[in-house]
Amino acid sequence: MGNRVRAVVAGATGYSGRELIRLIAGHSGMELAGVFASRGGSSTPIVEIHPQLRGFQPGGADLSDLDSTICHPFDEEALARLKPAVIFLATPNEFSHEIMPSMLATGATVVDLSGSFRLRDASLYPAFYGFEHQATPLLEEAVYGMTELVRAQLPGAKLIANPGCYPTSIILPVRPLLEAGLVDESQPVISDSKSGVTGAGKTPTATTHFVEVSESFRAYNLLRHRHAPEIAQGLGLPGGTDRLVFSPHLLPINRGILSTIYLKLKAGTTRQSILDVWQERYAAAPLIRIFAGSQLPEIKFVAGLPFCDMGVVVDERSGQAIIVAAIDNLLKGAASQALQNANLALGFAEAEGLR
Amino acid sequence: MGNRVRAVVAGATGYSGRELIRLIAGHSGMELAGVFASRGGSSTPIVEIHPQLRGFQPGGADLSDLDSTICHPFDEEALARLKPAVIFLATPNEFSHEIMPSMLATGATVVDLSGSFRLRDASLYPAFYGFEHQATPLLEEAVYGMTELVRAQLPGAKLIANPGCYPTSIILPVRPLLEAGLVDESQPVISDSKSGVTGAGKTPTATTHFVEVSESFRAYNLLRHRHAPEIAQGLGLPGGTDRLVFSPHLLPINRGILSTIYLKLKAGTTRQSILDVWQERYAAAPLIRIFAGSQLPEIKFVAGLPFCDMGVVVDERSGQAIIVAAIDNLLKGAASQALQNANLALGFAEAEGLR
Amino acid sequence: MGNRVRAVVAGATGYSGRELIRLIAGHSGMELAGVFASRGGSSTPIVEIHPQLRGFQPGGADLSDLDSTICHPFDEEALARLKPAVIFLATPNEFSHEIMPSMLATGATVVDLSGSFRLRDASLYPAFYGFEHQATPLLEEAVYGMTELVRAQLPGAKLIANPGCYPTSIILPVRPLLEAGLVDESQPVISDSKSGVTGAGKTPTATTHFVEVSESFRAYNLLRHRHAPEIAQGLGLPGGTDRLVFSPHLLPINRGILSTIYLKLKAGTTRQSILDVWQERYAAAPLIRIFAGSQLPEIKFVAGLPFCDMGVVVDERSGQAIIVAAIDNLLKGAASQALQNANLALGFAEAEGLR
Amino acid sequence: MGNRVRAVVAGATGYSGRELIRLIAGHSGMELAGVFASRGGSSTPIVEIHPQLRGFQPGGADLSDLDSTICHPFDEEALARLKPAVIFLATPNEFSHEIMPSMLATGATVVDLSGSFRLRDASLYPAFYGFEHQATPLLEEAVYGMTELVRAQLPGAKLIANPGCYPTSIILPVRPLLEAGLVDESQPVISDSKSGVTGAGKTPTATTHFVEVSESFRAYNLLRHRHAPEIAQGLGLPGGTDRLVFSPHLLPINRGILSTIYLKLKAGTTRQSILDVWQERYAAAPLIRIFAGSQLPEIKFVAGLPFCDMGVVVDERSGQAIIVAAIDNLLKGAASQALQNANLALGFAEAEGLR
Repeated sequence: MGNRVRAVVAGATGYSGRELIRLIAGHSGMELAGVFASRGGSSTPIVEIHPQLRGFQPGGADLSDLDSTICHPFDEEALARLKPAVIFLATPNEFSHEIMPSMLATGATVVDLSGSFRLRDASLYPAFYGFEHQATPLLEEAVYGMTELVRAQLPGAKLIANPGCYPTSIILPVRPLLEAGLVDESQPVISDSKSGVTGAGKTPTATTHFVEVSESFRAYNLLRHRHAPEIAQGLGLPGGTDRLVFSPHLLPINRGILSTIYLKLKAGTTRQSILDVWQERYAAAPLIRIFAGSQLPEIKFVAGLPFCDMGVVVDERSGQAIIVAAIDNLLKGAASQALQNANLALGFAEAEGLR
Repeated sequence: MGNRVRAVVAGATGYSGRELIRLIAGHSGMELAGVFASRGGSSTPIVEIHPQLRGFQPGGADLSDLDSTICHPFDEEALARLKPAVIFLATPNEFSHEIMPSMLATGATVVDLSGSFRLRDASLYPAFYGFEHQATPLLEEAVYGMTELVRAQLPGAKLIANPGCYPTSIILPVRPLLEAGLVDESQPVISDSKSGVTGAGKTPTATTHFVEVSESFRAYNLLRHRHAPEIAQGLGLPGGTDRLVFSPHLLPINRGILSTIYLKLKAGTTRQSILDVWQERYAAAPLIRIFAGSQLPEIKFVAGLPFCDMGVVVDERSGQAIIVAAIDNLLKGAASQALQNANLALGFAEAEGLR
Repeated sequence: MGNRVRAVVAGATGYSGRELIRLIAGHSGMELAGVFASRGGSSTPIVEIHPQLRGFQPGGADLSDLDSTICHPFDEEALARLKPAVIFLATPNEFSHEIMPSMLATGATVVDLSGSFRLRDASLYPAFYGFEHQATPLLEEAVYGMTELVRAQLPGAKLIANPGCYPTSIILPVRPLLEAGLVDESQPVISDSKSGVTGAGKTPTATTHFVEVSESFRAYNLLRHRHAPEIAQGLGLPGGTDRLVFSPHLLPINRGILSTIYLKLKAGTTRQSILDVWQERYAAAPLIRIFAGSQLPEIKFVAGLPFCDMGVVVDERSGQAIIVAAIDNLLKGAASQALQNANLALGFAEAEGLR
Repeated sequence: MGNRVRAVVAGATGYSGRELIRLIAGHSGMELAGVFASRGGSSTPIVEIHPQLRGFQPGGADLSDLDSTICHPFDEEALARLKPAVIFLATPNEFSHEIMPSMLATGATVVDLSGSFRLRDASLYPAFYGFEHQATPLLEEAVYGMTELVRAQLPGAKLIANPGCYPTSIILPVRPLLEAGLVDESQPVISDSKSGVTGAGKTPTATTHFVEVSESFRAYNLLRHRHAPEIAQGLGLPGGTDRLVFSPHLLPINRGILSTIYLKLKAGTTRQSILDVWQERYAAAPLIRIFAGSQLPEIKFVAGLPFCDMGVVVDERSGQAIIVAAIDNLLKGAASQALQNANLALGFAEAEGLR
């Protein structure tokens, strides 16, 4: 185990933190050197916080023993002493932003699952994240880790801003079509997106109470969700969010996002031309699944899995395309994409630990 | 009880049939004269088919006694002998179409909950319903019962084509805006609609199996759902479905539809101008609820209730409107709208039995 | 409306409060004179707290207008000035206990949906409810309102302790069998009970977070739930909880309780003898439904309805009986039983407003 | 790949079949030599039947490529030509029983996930499985594969009857306590068990229709479930089912079983004595998790995982014990226990492929 790469997870008490631990524990080239909560709290065995992780490697003498792993309150110095090669931050937005300089000072590759380094334009932070960004030079240095679109920039990257869940489900299918010039640029890109409740985090609130969610469905934060500027940036849309309409909705399920995306195509564009662009662009992408037949992606096909699924129908007479894309918000929308990025930053195979 | 209006329900074994029975049993001016299944089957107490209905009017000596009501196989002559004033058909599409002439011959007002008399253009039936329409003169006679929009045509109507569930959630909020000239006619109306599983009926299929629906979400019948021509007709869109994009999705819940509808507004149109149109148009509509504050409709607000809820957000800079409308698909999308139509046809108060 | 009985609901912001308001609004002989929250908060339209209640009596000019009803912070004096004939307390346990003397001083009949007057033995309060009971004389005066078992004590009653949800599902089917001498008294009564999440109230907690409940199931408070002494008392079991094993579980649904109850029968007792006892005991009970055929109660048969359903299977060789009973925890387990009790206390028909 | 053990799955179209394929694909020492449906049907890519399996080993050149694997109709001869070392039968009961002789004739180890070889007493088959058993000598040869209890019999076993899901959740926690003499033998063992819907299989029926299951809960097959004799046999209870009360219920979730088990203990038996028996008996069992603290097993802790979780509370005054045990019905209750058994039969580590 001595020559495994040492990984640390901060923000280990939440759902993304739990998934990161599970994935790292199954990675052939990483070992879990330590886990931390966010600020505050007390030291607690990680299997008391996440009983799912008990006995996780029953026979695995060569793997770290989760049953005896303690989750400590966040402590920069203790973390640095672990000499990690990679640090995963599943911490709150403002907290990630605050600790980033000291995390980078450890020399590790830092994969930040929060939104605090995703937006290039620092002026957007007060309105969308509620704080003034204090580390604007790092915003330029950060690689926005939509893995399949930035693979070349990842080897050796030190600060990776892991994408948001909704943006992943929209940018991966749409950006290649915009770049290939298939889309009528006079019309907005409309994404009607639906997410399971893990996307709202683990803190109990009136809007995540079982009774308020079950047997119901609702739109929320229309025209003002913080993922809107991230999506516009990721799509390279001129004029910011003007050409983007993004409508998030809350599904009464635990995991998964399905985005139904409406695009007006340029004259003559067919369904096959969309499939061709995807197949060429993602030919070597092990974690993209293109639905080229009559079946479309559904959340159940991707729940618990690290893929982004995409399919499309086109009304060729009117040029209207409807893209359906699905991910597991905790995996391709968070933890598995983080590991995918870390794999490429550190020289592992892209899908190592994710199969 | 002698001077109550006599009502018959055919197709009583399904979910809409059950709701009709429950509503009629609570109506101060109707009595349930008989209930029938669709073709075939055997005579069975209705409370064995729907145990929810047992003991429904515990102390109600003045109401029909559901506990002893028998649901018989469909029988035109037995039905006619009951001399109903109103017949509710919750029967399959082709079957409604087949029995309609004999139902009308009884002299009763017939409210058809199937799709078989909704489309004016008979040529659409083979493609969308799988049969050649044999009663085209009746298509012209039928009143398309989107109650709030056709109130004047309902008194005395004999054949009422009760609207589909999805169309109700779209036509009620959008048609007044089109008529008021608020909408940019060069752009499509896009409705991303989500329905609970009762909308798929009671017959078990691979796509309604609990395991296939729960913890999942999917789009279906994109660009080819049979409600698309009904919606286009109901909106009065020129060019048929060309200006309509309708995307149905299946929610892992029992009841309710929420439609998120994207409209491009004419320059200068504000959110308030939309609310004004709705409030004027629906000022006297007891079963329309307009969400004029910051809250938007959610399925849980309307589940089990006979309302259509509507709200809207507008990006006034770009002119993009997002309407959110919600109904209970079994009530305003089926049984309660049927009773609302029957109330007006027979001279009752519109919301009688629906409070 | 002048000669309707005036009702007040305190604790109107919770789920039981909402159901009480809905039921009272539909009651032919009551009017809603006022609604209050528990301590604190600000005055808010009740339809902002419960949007389900908007437009509830669309055409009902003779009914109170919920749309303009304000829910005020609890205020004893303001409440007394409303001169209610009946006060429903859906307030927290300790708070109900604290305000009870002043509520009774109004001269109204008080129906307390909390647990604060259910247990006769005041010494149980510190352990099971966390406070010392200060009004022990009222404990003797209170009628424990398991309606069907105490009907004779209800007319004119001033303090009615409305039963807990779990106890209702157990005491109604089991008590008559104990009284009829059918049960082997050397064996414990075991109730394995399962409840939907509304039973845990509206306050968001880690254990009611959607993600923690959905796709899961768990037992809780085994051998120490506060309903255990209430059930033992209601069954009249000698020796307190010694002969009772009560195991509550949390179901991933909103509403409903199903209790599976294991009894050892005396030799010679048959399934029919149990059905006979129930049918005789509940012959005039409009809100008890006995399942005498092969079908057993299920939660969906009773959700949204004011009934207690009961059925039984018996292994006549071994004398083992398994009773299955179901209620809607918010209705027969709370609000509808409260109204049923108020009906009898005030001289209305038992099921008035509950059909 | 040449020296991997060759495995075949028959009955690959169902939920257990899908899980088996997924597990075998991740096993370091097995390769998937072929997959078959049950009788009939046509040859179809397995990823069309189970889209979850698409791209499952993205980078795994050393693993079989599921994307090109065809599921063929069952064909004994084609199966035999694949020269499997292990055959997993996830086929219907009677069908497993019919093909078993020819499966054994291939020389492979056969792990039968159906019930057709679980009961030693052939006379029980007509009543509980609906067919006369034709291979009674094989009933004696079969190893009933409750892995942790029969580990010594598994190496080299040729016919392994994989246990039922409910029995696994009951026998694993209870049998060691019976054997250790902790249980009062004059009282019945009562198991109130609750299962997710995958336990009912993939065929759509009225009782697995989403609308009939969601927001509901019900008991079924009380006193006559086919798992009752299997549980009695597995517990070694004298007198057959006389000392067993087994009550299955259907939960509105996809996966998981939780059994709440009521035992009367002999005088002086404590909670700790139960924990001690479990800890000694399962000291070397990698897939048993004992909950020795205050937390009890819940379905969400075990969903998607190969463990059997067990915990207990005891009322030491009355000697009443309540055991709570949980498994994933598709894994420890079916596919993962099958692989666990195959691992031991073929000489692999018990938990290989299951971590």
